Amino acid sequence: MKNEETAVKMILSGWKNGQDKIQKALLTLSDEHMDMELMPGRNKVSWVVGHLAAVNDSLFSILGLGEKINEDYHDYFTKDDSMIKAPGISQTRAYWKETSEQLDNAIAALSVQDWFERHTTVSAEDFAKEPHRNKLNVLLSRTLHLNHHFGQLALVLKPIMHH
Amino acid sequence: MKNEETAVKMILSGWKNGQDKIQKALLTLSDEHMDMELMPGRNKVSWVVGHLAAVNDSLFSILGLGEKINEDYHDYFTKDDSMIKAPGISQTRAYWKETSEQLDNAIAALSVQDWFERHTTVSAEDFAKEPHRNKLNVLLSRTLHLNHHFGQLALVLKPIMHH
Repeated sequence: MKNEETAVKMILSGWKNGQDKIQKALLTLSDEHMDMELMPGRNKVSWVVGHLAAVNDSLFSILGLGEKINEDYHDYFTKDDSMIKAPGISQTRAYWKETSEQLDNAIAALSVQDWFERHTTVSAEDFAKEPHRNKLNVLLSRTLHLNHHFGQLALVLKPIMHH
Repeated sequence: MKNEETAVKMILSGWKNGQDKIQKALLTLSDEHMDMELMPGRNKVSWVVGHLAAVNDSLFSILGLGEKINEDYHDYFTKDDSMIKAPGISQTRAYWKETSEQLDNAIAALSVQDWFERHTTVSAEDFAKEPHRNKLNVLLSRTLHLNHHFGQLALVLKPIMHH
């Protein structure tokens, strides 16, 4: 196996492990847990899940794989000035599931070479100078972001799992 | 630039960003914050910092770069049955700084090819079958781990930064 192929496999595997951790967490978290704040006055558990779904949703266009599944939900969970009413917990769960499944199906079709191509928010000129601004790097940064938030969910999950 | 070189650059950059976030957090966190629990009955902030230092410390031997800086501290922050007294907050800060600086100096000497070589806890036979068990994958997994815990520190940091 060539090193570039190994590197793609490693990063895809890190992403997949992260997605699996969120999926498993959603099976464990009750609707009451979803409604808890991570800390007094801070984001709720359900917001973290919705936020990760919105980041999944933004990846379709950044990776050149299609359009957002739900523009309103995407904006609600990533912007401060969304005009829509807060999605309910079951809607948030469904948004994560849908973005996650469709995204993971879509990226399965990308080749090793595709992953090293530029993503859609960098110009051809800039990419020629900065070849690390490729699709694989987008997935890597989203994997780091996912782990950041999973670390927060783990604080809520651990006491549940020990009972 | 070859794709394998680009991939190494991306993962090293992810690691470096993570290390920088911890360093910056340590400048912001007072000793009182270090003594806070992340949640009632859960790990203290200082434990998270010491745990990240211990993971740094374990990387010297896994990457073939040398020996642990402090075996006692490493065991205290990674095992449940350590016999030593809890390191103080200033000792924990110093442990993170020392492991972090020495590790980052040591890994700067590794070439692209070195990163795709096997790490020291996998056998040559297993590595022949599983080439992803290389040094770069160790650094990637530790970067994901660092982000997991930084997400927790961010819950403590955000209110501080807003005041």
